[in-house]
Amino acid sequence: MADVQIGIIMGSQSDWPTMKEAADILDALALPYESRIVSAHRTPDRLWDYGKGAVDRGLQVIIAGAGGAAHLPGMMASKTRLPVIGVPIRTQALSGVDSLYSIVQMPRGYPVATMAIGAAGAANAALMAAAILALHDPALAQRLDQWRADLSASIPQEPVND
Amino acid sequence: MADVQIGIIMGSQSDWPTMKEAADILDALALPYESRIVSAHRTPDRLWDYGKGAVDRGLQVIIAGAGGAAHLPGMMASKTRLPVIGVPIRTQALSGVDSLYSIVQMPRGYPVATMAIGAAGAANAALMAAAILALHDPALAQRLDQWRADLSASIPQEPVND
Amino acid sequence: MADVQIGIIMGSQSDWPTMKEAADILDALALPYESRIVSAHRTPDRLWDYGKGAVDRGLQVIIAGAGGAAHLPGMMASKTRLPVIGVPIRTQALSGVDSLYSIVQMPRGYPVATMAIGAAGAANAALMAAAILALHDPALAQRLDQWRADLSASIPQEPVND
Amino acid sequence: MADVQIGIIMGSQSDWPTMKEAADILDALALPYESRIVSAHRTPDRLWDYGKGAVDRGLQVIIAGAGGAAHLPGMMASKTRLPVIGVPIRTQALSGVDSLYSIVQMPRGYPVATMAIGAAGAANAALMAAAILALHDPALAQRLDQWRADLSASIPQEPVND
Amino acid sequence: MADVQIGIIMGSQSDWPTMKEAADILDALALPYESRIVSAHRTPDRLWDYGKGAVDRGLQVIIAGAGGAAHLPGMMASKTRLPVIGVPIRTQALSGVDSLYSIVQMPRGYPVATMAIGAAGAANAALMAAAILALHDPALAQRLDQWRADLSASIPQEPVND
Amino acid sequence: MADVQIGIIMGSQSDWPTMKEAADILDALALPYESRIVSAHRTPDRLWDYGKGAVDRGLQVIIAGAGGAAHLPGMMASKTRLPVIGVPIRTQALSGVDSLYSIVQMPRGYPVATMAIGAAGAANAALMAAAILALHDPALAQRLDQWRADLSASIPQEPVND
Amino acid sequence: MADVQIGIIMGSQSDWPTMKEAADILDALALPYESRIVSAHRTPDRLWDYGKGAVDRGLQVIIAGAGGAAHLPGMMASKTRLPVIGVPIRTQALSGVDSLYSIVQMPRGYPVATMAIGAAGAANAALMAAAILALHDPALAQRLDQWRADLSASIPQEPVND
Amino acid sequence: MADVQIGIIMGSQSDWPTMKEAADILDALALPYESRIVSAHRTPDRLWDYGKGAVDRGLQVIIAGAGGAAHLPGMMASKTRLPVIGVPIRTQALSGVDSLYSIVQMPRGYPVATMAIGAAGAANAALMAAAILALHDPALAQRLDQWRADLSASIPQEPVND
Repeated sequence: MADVQIGIIMGSQSDWPTMKEAADILDALALPYESRIVSAHRTPDRLWDYGKGAVDRGLQVIIAGAGGAAHLPGMMASKTRLPVIGVPIRTQALSGVDSLYSIVQMPRGYPVATMAIGAAGAANAALMAAAILALHDPALAQRLDQWRADLSASIPQEPVND
Repeated sequence: MADVQIGIIMGSQSDWPTMKEAADILDALALPYESRIVSAHRTPDRLWDYGKGAVDRGLQVIIAGAGGAAHLPGMMASKTRLPVIGVPIRTQALSGVDSLYSIVQMPRGYPVATMAIGAAGAANAALMAAAILALHDPALAQRLDQWRADLSASIPQEPVND
Repeated sequence: MADVQIGIIMGSQSDWPTMKEAADILDALALPYESRIVSAHRTPDRLWDYGKGAVDRGLQVIIAGAGGAAHLPGMMASKTRLPVIGVPIRTQALSGVDSLYSIVQMPRGYPVATMAIGAAGAANAALMAAAILALHDPALAQRLDQWRADLSASIPQEPVND
Repeated sequence: MADVQIGIIMGSQSDWPTMKEAADILDALALPYESRIVSAHRTPDRLWDYGKGAVDRGLQVIIAGAGGAAHLPGMMASKTRLPVIGVPIRTQALSGVDSLYSIVQMPRGYPVATMAIGAAGAANAALMAAAILALHDPALAQRLDQWRADLSASIPQEPVND
Repeated sequence: MADVQIGIIMGSQSDWPTMKEAADILDALALPYESRIVSAHRTPDRLWDYGKGAVDRGLQVIIAGAGGAAHLPGMMASKTRLPVIGVPIRTQALSGVDSLYSIVQMPRGYPVATMAIGAAGAANAALMAAAILALHDPALAQRLDQWRADLSASIPQEPVND
Repeated sequence: MADVQIGIIMGSQSDWPTMKEAADILDALALPYESRIVSAHRTPDRLWDYGKGAVDRGLQVIIAGAGGAAHLPGMMASKTRLPVIGVPIRTQALSGVDSLYSIVQMPRGYPVATMAIGAAGAANAALMAAAILALHDPALAQRLDQWRADLSASIPQEPVND
Repeated sequence: MADVQIGIIMGSQSDWPTMKEAADILDALALPYESRIVSAHRTPDRLWDYGKGAVDRGLQVIIAGAGGAAHLPGMMASKTRLPVIGVPIRTQALSGVDSLYSIVQMPRGYPVATMAIGAAGAANAALMAAAILALHDPALAQRLDQWRADLSASIPQEPVND
Repeated sequence: MADVQIGIIMGSQSDWPTMKEAADILDALALPYESRIVSAHRTPDRLWDYGKGAVDRGLQVIIAGAGGAAHLPGMMASKTRLPVIGVPIRTQALSGVDSLYSIVQMPRGYPVATMAIGAAGAANAALMAAAILALHDPALAQRLDQWRADLSASIPQEPVND
């Protein structure tokens, strides 16, 4: 079995319906991954351990989804040099604008590659991870090109009424 | 000398002009405090140590100021049961709305007592700390009552032209 | 019976489903409380009396929830030196951003410890009250530590599909 | 001298440069007024007294300016049946959106006639007061009509370069 | 029958469920009114005529509700010296923030007394109209005082579970 | 001299520094235009007359700039079938978001072709007017193509330090 | 059959329920059109070809709807001198504010005639296209005048309860 | 000389003061790069060529900065499978919120790794590029670790007055 190079982490079980979009894309691209619940506030030591051990465990990219005062992606970026991709989860009161600001507005030194709010962002996080890994994996590059070509080819010429 | 019961922490030196408003109020109320730079992202282990040792060191309240993707107050709230008071620092592009959302929108389990954006918020953080400590310090309660009475008494009846 | 040290007040009956989250946490922590409807606009004199008598009645912390032009927490902070914790209730048109701004943007002199919008904020208001009272109540401190530990322990390692 | 029918109140001396726009319009319309500093938070009892005595003192309209968590207009509307006109003062971090939401989003029962943020709003508060008083003051109605006609007449046909 | 002194106008039939809140309050206060659909964009001449004839027809206050690019209240304020009270109708995409800004941000010279977004704003528009008319109608003043007293008296002391 | 087919109108003299950007582009494209101050609120009858006479006077496109509760473009769209292009002027408190919402959120039936906030929007209003007129003016189409080609050609390959 | 002068393009099939409002208006005005799915990101070459060939194919106006990071209208404006009318599609998280900003905030040189968010904007895009074409089509001008007159005539004088 | 693996592109010369922050970080990390002006709207064909040739020219990461209706990063992501990092440039009216939304809200299929608004975002774009390249460049990984360690070490323990 191929080594796991991508970690999908999220702040709570309730984020999974969104983050599963990332997992589905990775499955489609035949990219192995692990998925973990790592709460910045409820399990900070788990976050610490995950971040500190990420390089040694062979991870190459971390996809982190969180909502509200979404500290998980940014704190992970503080603990590891690996690229961290952040997915702002939609929230009830603020629709995910709070999540977006908490993830994207990182200070100089600790980037988080922020995606769109919600499911499209989760899917794109997987594609961004694939794009990064494809830089040194020609077979993956080909699969990614194919995935993109298939998506383009799926667009009809004209809209149809339901 | 009285024990230090209040810690003022902030993400960077550039937050000090704002956070000094808190220090000035504490000085006026004769409340000893320490002030530290603790960056959630640049010095996460310092944050960890500060949070873990806070109770044992005799701290009672922590005032934390941060801007942008402001993770310091919330992460501190995750590491200690002490009351954490958060001050959203104003930012260039988003005027501190990013700081506010990153601090106030904490998930269930880890409250941050959020103050107004900027200098008024910093001053009020000190007053909130004093209000908490005054619950078991009648002399401080008296000083706080006096401070509030003085503020009220300072308001003139009519506005004057410059 | 233990003395009531915490007052939960709210602007209207319709705020109760949100504020009950605070009550539930206080119940779980075995902290007695009273709950009252105190409308800043409809019952201003009740607000006045509540604020003026709070210290003498032995209250230590006031949790105040309000929505829209949410004046209750701030006016209560004006009438008593006790720590006031504000909970912005979600609103129809503005999702509680109006409540949040009306509560958090207090001027220098009168802090309100503002929580997140909605139910999570109400729950956290109770936890903040507990954190304040725990400063001089070792048994409560232990219960609060346990509550936090239980919450952390409840987080599974991996997400599961529904 | 004509009786004073209009009260201009504001939360602090720093609001006067804005609220003076209202005073200037009232001067131009020969409408007597009083101007007072009444802080909802720093001088709540002054607010109470002002509101309770307003009708008996012969006031007919109250213009109230405030910024940030702007509780003055709404609390005044709670204490008197007189029409209250609210002026949201511009603020540093949030440009007066906080003031606007705190003033305009009043609950059912206690209207505040909210004007635009800042100086134009203050000027318009005076004109709204004049419109109300003109309902039973034909001479004032004539002066107000003239003021409006003069404003219209002052508009040139074409823009000119500076 | 008493003369009609209040006109309720709105941009479209779809605004009526909101604006009916104003009508219901006026009914409760025994204040006669007329209700008309006057669209700023679809029936501009109707708007013109309504504004120009308002004083002569004996109207004293105009309540105008509109949504989106809500031009009706402001244009009416341009056409008559009578007090115009604006009600921002909630909208699908922007929840009525567009309506609010279009109504409240009037330029110097043409005030609109802006109420809260939606139904509470419509109810308050009626109360503001009553407050204005009560200045010269002692019986109405008494009814308004009673309405306010009843509202206050209706607030229970404690919240109850459903 | 060529007939004037484009009217540039604006709410006040203070809008001219912005709207002059439109005039400058029209000059560069050799398109004659007239510029007028037409205030929706201060000179509503001038607006009426302008709108009603526009077609007969031979105008083909109207460019309308306004700020705050910006009613000019939308009311003009109500009074004439000619294409109306709206330019949201920047404002002090709300940076032109109020202008933008007041212009763009027009109801079904009365479109305003809304441009970007401020000077870029004014310049683009002129280019949109040119694009419309070029549909039946081959020489203008050629000048517009050239203007666009020149703009493209002016872009250097690499950035340079100041 | 009359030549097709109007192209309705949209980023995806899911935009069609909104954009069909434009088609319905064009049908009512007897204006032939074509409707195409042209995704800026998924089918960029289709966008290129559509834009480059638009003038030669005899198109006169392009209506482009897109949501989120809505690049279609602006990129089309870059590729053709024809007037491009943009319709911001509503989105889940940001209600179409993201679409609006992505469409309206075009830089100097490449205007997009932006309409309201959602269905009203789509309908108005069709009316704006008709207004442009009517400049040189007196019969269409008459139909458009009639459509507008019918809309005005359809407004009842008074609201009715459901 | 090492091959250029990073392209910094931006919409206009005026973006360079911001994007130079990225260049400075890359210089500090001894990472060669090229910097180009590629305007999505003014030079769309340049964008096309850059995107299509990027892989063949040996580029591995593209950093794209743009403001307002910021289409450059997203269109580049459409034209190449390489990771694209987006930097929202601050804007006058909307402070870069327009840029942020236009860049981050990409639809499923075409991710842009979005950074913070302005200079911090540009610096972080360079660090993200370095993190990606460091996955297969141990020497760079070491330099990046050192850069991060140096940043952490530069944080003083206590704030100092100016």
